[in-house]
Amino acid sequence: MSAGYIPAVRLDKSRNCIVLLDQTCLPRQTKLLEIRDAVQLHEAIRSLRVRGAPAIGVAAAFGMYLAAKASAAEDARILTDELCRVKAFLDSARPTAVNLSWATERMLRVCRAAAGCPAADVKSALLREAILIRNEDASSCRAIGEHALSLVKPGDGILTHCNAGRLAAGDCGTATAVMYLGAERGYGLRVYADETRPLLQGARLTAYELMQAGIDVTLICDGMCASVMRRGLIDAVFVGADRIAANGDTANKVGTAAVAAAAHYHHIPFYVCAPISTVDMSAGSGDSIVIEERDSSEITEKWYAERMAPDGVKVFNPAFDITDAELITAIVTERGIARAPFGETLAALTQRKG
Amino acid sequence: MSAGYIPAVRLDKSRNCIVLLDQTCLPRQTKLLEIRDAVQLHEAIRSLRVRGAPAIGVAAAFGMYLAAKASAAEDARILTDELCRVKAFLDSARPTAVNLSWATERMLRVCRAAAGCPAADVKSALLREAILIRNEDASSCRAIGEHALSLVKPGDGILTHCNAGRLAAGDCGTATAVMYLGAERGYGLRVYADETRPLLQGARLTAYELMQAGIDVTLICDGMCASVMRRGLIDAVFVGADRIAANGDTANKVGTAAVAAAAHYHHIPFYVCAPISTVDMSAGSGDSIVIEERDSSEITEKWYAERMAPDGVKVFNPAFDITDAELITAIVTERGIARAPFGETLAALTQRKG
Repeated sequence: MSAGYIPAVRLDKSRNCIVLLDQTCLPRQTKLLEIRDAVQLHEAIRSLRVRGAPAIGVAAAFGMYLAAKASAAEDARILTDELCRVKAFLDSARPTAVNLSWATERMLRVCRAAAGCPAADVKSALLREAILIRNEDASSCRAIGEHALSLVKPGDGILTHCNAGRLAAGDCGTATAVMYLGAERGYGLRVYADETRPLLQGARLTAYELMQAGIDVTLICDGMCASVMRRGLIDAVFVGADRIAANGDTANKVGTAAVAAAAHYHHIPFYVCAPISTVDMSAGSGDSIVIEERDSSEITEKWYAERMAPDGVKVFNPAFDITDAELITAIVTERGIARAPFGETLAALTQRKG
Repeated sequence: MSAGYIPAVRLDKSRNCIVLLDQTCLPRQTKLLEIRDAVQLHEAIRSLRVRGAPAIGVAAAFGMYLAAKASAAEDARILTDELCRVKAFLDSARPTAVNLSWATERMLRVCRAAAGCPAADVKSALLREAILIRNEDASSCRAIGEHALSLVKPGDGILTHCNAGRLAAGDCGTATAVMYLGAERGYGLRVYADETRPLLQGARLTAYELMQAGIDVTLICDGMCASVMRRGLIDAVFVGADRIAANGDTANKVGTAAVAAAAHYHHIPFYVCAPISTVDMSAGSGDSIVIEERDSSEITEKWYAERMAPDGVKVFNPAFDITDAELITAIVTERGIARAPFGETLAALTQRKG
């Protein structure tokens, strides 16, 4: 994996800010943003300047730390009240990815556990927790890659949708972990990247980061997935996840479920790659996952020189969809590979110590 | 159906030209093009100024007539030789849609049958044949609509991909025939139109023409098809076809096969609507249909204010895909509805007199 790439999210402790690589500007411009408070971070998450479930979690953890550091509160109780409000505000930026509320909850728990301590100690503990979340994310990605590599063979064609790469998570990403580790070990994998409408994360981000790493990647439109499968070019599909329900139903970038249906029809294995923190045991099935709906202009106008749909057209723009568990061959986590029945295998993995 | 819309293709006899509605400019601009010779027509077909299998056939028939009319040949034999070359040239504009070569072949047959006649008589016969092709196209669409209407019920949600509308064929289009006839008869159908990447025929053309006709249409991205199906919004899928093989395998705009796989998984009927001229009994299956590959800039640049994928990215851009016959519930033609086994039912329909 190429050294020296710019991480999606990093904490600059000395300058009291989070440094984000603004992903709305890629691939044309490498623009770094300095985020100093929760309002700026909320905007950055909402506008997809930072995106990808694990990266949002890491950014939110750093955001909770910065909010604590800036607080004048003198004890843990008052700080906890303040961070409760920051958590609720940050969580509201995007409703579907569970990693956001999972990370803010972990930070809040540290704060609560420090009841009675001086604020300075709580702030140090929060910094340690945020860095731990970031480091765990990076090591999870690598572990996911090791597990995923057991599912492919040299020369395989792999299709992916959206960006679950190192722009979305630490180190080698989640769905892309198999590609980066495969490249390190000379697997010569051929990657097909769906462009991923409406916001083109596949064209702008996945094609960009894989090309930077010297990995063979071919860009296709989302609807071409069945076409490359029918031609025998695809041996496996690897995608990320924003939230995985207890039964295995998986919320991921809209378009994922259509790819899964095509893979199912063509008897091609379909793998979901995500850290165990993406599993939401409180969601019984996909039906209890809230799907964010975004502005219609993302479809009718965004990125375009001119409006490409009639004025006033009705638009439906869900950001995510649910892939039924029965379409998923396996869920690859840092703790191992879960297969059906997911109700049992996911429960076992979430209960196991990481 | 609203009167007074501008047809996609029309012959202006007195001015010796074909008048095309330039579909690359829709929905922002209503621009009419006057096409005077085969070179201009080839460009217009290749650049998708006129597109949609039946409309291309009608335009090519008119193009053959104009070429004949402009010829100085004095007898049918020399004219036939000339038209042979025009046919080969026009056919080369787009390889997948069979209606193009089917229409030019019909025109050539008229020419051949007139061996020994004076050129003026042959030219009159060619004009009659071209007008017949256009009129048959329009009446086929209406007949397709009548058959298709038997497959839906009032209030149904219908998903369509690309544009197989009146911009692609005469009268009420092919896949859209059920929508226009449904509107005439108060069915209150709800249409979901895939935007259809890369060239956005769904967003630019289908949404446009259905809105003009006052039909309830909602625009979605291609990958959202599985999402609206899972939500129970779709009762049937209707698409057009560029070529149907003898076994029912269907070439249509790329993305169709992914929609078909999603419909299959969700047990939603998937209907192909096309005039019988789209059935190519010489193609045993989809594997013998040539799939046009188009320029990568259609994916990476076209319609955009700025380049949306990294420079130098590898791109695969097939214009069409093959939907396996087993994913198709029925093929709706002007002669009736064919169901599996398509090998038998399509053969019977093609042999029946129109």
